[in-house]
Amino acid sequence: MDDLQDRGFSTGTAASLASLFNPRTVAVIGASSVIGKWGQMILSNILAGRFPGKTFPVNSGGGTLCGLSSYKRIQDVTEPIDLAVITAPADALREVVNECCEKGVRGMVVITSGFSEAGEEGRRLEEELVSLSRAAQMIMIGPNTMGILCPHAGLFASGAHSRPRKGTVAFVSQSGNLGTQLIHWADQQGIGISLFVGSGNEAMVTCSDYLEYLESDPHTETIILYMESVKDGHRFIEVSRRVNRSKPVIVLKGGRTEAGKVASASHTGAMHGESAVFGAACKQAGLIEVSAPSELLDLSAAFSSLPLPRGNRVGIVTLGGGWGVVTADQCNEKDLLVPDIPDHIVRTIGSFLPPFWSRRNPIDLVGTKDPQVPLVAVEELLKWDGVDAVISLGIVGRHELVQLLVQSVREVDPGVTSSHLSQLESASREYEKAYVARMADLMAEYRKPVIGVSLARTREGTVRHQQGKPYHPVFYQTPEDAVNVLARMVQYHEYKARS
Amino acid sequence: MDDLQDRGFSTGTAASLASLFNPRTVAVIGASSVIGKWGQMILSNILAGRFPGKTFPVNSGGGTLCGLSSYKRIQDVTEPIDLAVITAPADALREVVNECCEKGVRGMVVITSGFSEAGEEGRRLEEELVSLSRAAQMIMIGPNTMGILCPHAGLFASGAHSRPRKGTVAFVSQSGNLGTQLIHWADQQGIGISLFVGSGNEAMVTCSDYLEYLESDPHTETIILYMESVKDGHRFIEVSRRVNRSKPVIVLKGGRTEAGKVASASHTGAMHGESAVFGAACKQAGLIEVSAPSELLDLSAAFSSLPLPRGNRVGIVTLGGGWGVVTADQCNEKDLLVPDIPDHIVRTIGSFLPPFWSRRNPIDLVGTKDPQVPLVAVEELLKWDGVDAVISLGIVGRHELVQLLVQSVREVDPGVTSSHLSQLESASREYEKAYVARMADLMAEYRKPVIGVSLARTREGTVRHQQGKPYHPVFYQTPEDAVNVLARMVQYHEYKARS
Repeated sequence: MDDLQDRGFSTGTAASLASLFNPRTVAVIGASSVIGKWGQMILSNILAGRFPGKTFPVNSGGGTLCGLSSYKRIQDVTEPIDLAVITAPADALREVVNECCEKGVRGMVVITSGFSEAGEEGRRLEEELVSLSRAAQMIMIGPNTMGILCPHAGLFASGAHSRPRKGTVAFVSQSGNLGTQLIHWADQQGIGISLFVGSGNEAMVTCSDYLEYLESDPHTETIILYMESVKDGHRFIEVSRRVNRSKPVIVLKGGRTEAGKVASASHTGAMHGESAVFGAACKQAGLIEVSAPSELLDLSAAFSSLPLPRGNRVGIVTLGGGWGVVTADQCNEKDLLVPDIPDHIVRTIGSFLPPFWSRRNPIDLVGTKDPQVPLVAVEELLKWDGVDAVISLGIVGRHELVQLLVQSVREVDPGVTSSHLSQLESASREYEKAYVARMADLMAEYRKPVIGVSLARTREGTVRHQQGKPYHPVFYQTPEDAVNVLARMVQYHEYKARS
Repeated sequence: MDDLQDRGFSTGTAASLASLFNPRTVAVIGASSVIGKWGQMILSNILAGRFPGKTFPVNSGGGTLCGLSSYKRIQDVTEPIDLAVITAPADALREVVNECCEKGVRGMVVITSGFSEAGEEGRRLEEELVSLSRAAQMIMIGPNTMGILCPHAGLFASGAHSRPRKGTVAFVSQSGNLGTQLIHWADQQGIGISLFVGSGNEAMVTCSDYLEYLESDPHTETIILYMESVKDGHRFIEVSRRVNRSKPVIVLKGGRTEAGKVASASHTGAMHGESAVFGAACKQAGLIEVSAPSELLDLSAAFSSLPLPRGNRVGIVTLGGGWGVVTADQCNEKDLLVPDIPDHIVRTIGSFLPPFWSRRNPIDLVGTKDPQVPLVAVEELLKWDGVDAVISLGIVGRHELVQLLVQSVREVDPGVTSSHLSQLESASREYEKAYVARMADLMAEYRKPVIGVSLARTREGTVRHQQGKPYHPVFYQTPEDAVNVLARMVQYHEYKARS
């Protein structure tokens, strides 16, 4: 730990981060009225996101920005400043940071780029800013970041104007534009966020620091990381292993291959000497390593919403045979078992179905229109101690096809009243809603995950948040996504059971 | 070929299929007014799809259906019938088929299930129907199918009411409900369809027959297959190898694993004795085998819209570094090369960018707002004989983030006029449209594929069809989809070059 203290980190870092991520006052230094400039995007995002604290635009030219009077220098603000988000140009940063020190600002997020990622001169300037900040006990995130989001504090201080709901997933990304887009996906998919940090060049605060902070952050239960480099390999192994035991850590490493490394070197200015260390860290620490950005989100949706499966045996419920076949294949290919079901389940489900149904797992409900049957089938499987998880296909998502059918009938069948068609549509919509709610209850009762596959590109998100419930149903569009997620959850459970 | 004639197939089969897929008159036998019944769904779909020929509902109870007088028996229709779509119950089918024979119906699509997939009795009935039909020289698709779609003939005779646009992709699926959903995806993704056939139990017409038909179908350029079993393994190898040389054949085999086989046995009643033959066929014939339904669509979008790459060297253009890194990694992992770019390209692109840009492939445009730069970068790469394809990320799709920004400004900045914001929005929308059109022109000029990654889940489809152009830009949401598609195109090109 001596080494860590040498680098200036201590329990103080976590406290400083806590203050930075929960500020009462925020200054935007370099605030602007020019749409598309960072100083404009950050300011308007904070305001449109209804930050409950006070916001102070700082702009050397003064004037009014978004209806607020701006300040020429941070020192002109009379109130103490918890967080300064800095978008001023790189060559002004020495002065800006000095002013922040003088003002006693507690923490900074430096959006500005043109530092270590841009060459030797930038590297020297970056080091100087770190020294200045450290001397003033001021914490600095970045530089070269796209900002932070703290939904629980009502603060959305990033360039992208997506504002995902409050939740339990924390996301640390070394790449700004990748982070931006994934935050947008999280919003679209209904994934609740506890914190987003664009960690940028990590001149002062590294991934390991964020992990330590998140370990004790009460809002965070799942952590996703996009990393191109590790500045402190040994510490990263130690910290991530420890954190991963209580909060699953899902990692995408950029620069795994030669082509990726070349690309990454000019991107975050990171050295890749430690990439062997990194690979080892993931394995040893039981981290959940993925190979695509979309997987980060798919997995975070599941880990933050579902109970962990206690084994690899899967029950499959499908409205139609083909999807069952495909899903069973995919389960087998990911080392998940699809066990045969016992006679009592065959009898119970069979009492609802025509005699030629499959009588097997996958349970093919042969397109039944009886709304009870899918519920019975899923519950019978969950009750049975022969499966650890259930995948259900096509039950939620069918509404999209019902809507198309209703629209056709409206066009061509004068014999059907419009109100009858509206009733059909709303019954199908309500059924899906009730099914989703029921899945949440069944998961709470049996503590086994039910993973839904909608088969449709519905406008609703992956996570169907159920207020006040311990678990939340998730619906992926494709079986391969559902199977992949389940396989990774099983691996994580096995790692935890072993270690 | 003797063997084929023994089984009743000849060049006559292709002619019969051509007539069946381009009917002037269609009867729906078992037509119904009960919403959700097959006889209702098929009839309303044909009518709502504005079939240009004549439609005759046949229902033993008579009466009016969708505003049309129905016929009690097919014989009551005075006009000749090219196609009968049959939804009557299985136990009525012997009589129905006899009536069709008597009437001289040219072809049947039998939706009804409960045949060989349901047991021995069903298998015997199925064989009997085949004999009856053969004797009357009447071709039969199915039974146990969800129907057919023939967009070029204006005929949508399936249970699902998605109506993808006319195009060049033919899709044969042994599973009805998988086919249904994929057709819906094709519609959402803007993939144009030449033909969809739910081949069902393939009692008379098999996948090999459809392939032979599609080989000479002028509308079809790409073929996708979902198969759980092969009835005529040797012939399938011979036919698919031949067809695949001129029209890429993309195949998903259901029942690749033990669990999948078990599921499939009770689904289509298929025997899996020949699954070894099948695996061999795919490899020998150079078929493009995939492992997930979504891949069938992703690949068909690319193969039907883009020129084939003539090698595996990829240029990457990205608005931000992280996505470039991730894409380069994924290329390397799929055996695609990301070569370094020559000085003249560095100079040309560099003249538009700040000095700290990557100067490398991936070309990171460091978030440039200059609308010309992405176009210049893509064209410089296409011109250069050092790459065979270009992947461009985030240029189309950014509009979604622009919209969010504009919405925030509208809410919080009284200093900006509404008309200025509308202008910004429409300029960004128009730019993306112009970019898409330009990509179509560049592909026509340089005969190399440009694969777009939108990074956004836009409402627009994967394929952006450009009327009258030889190639059509495609945009996937994620780099992994784009890279996978490109890698499979490269493999196909290599196979063709070798064979």
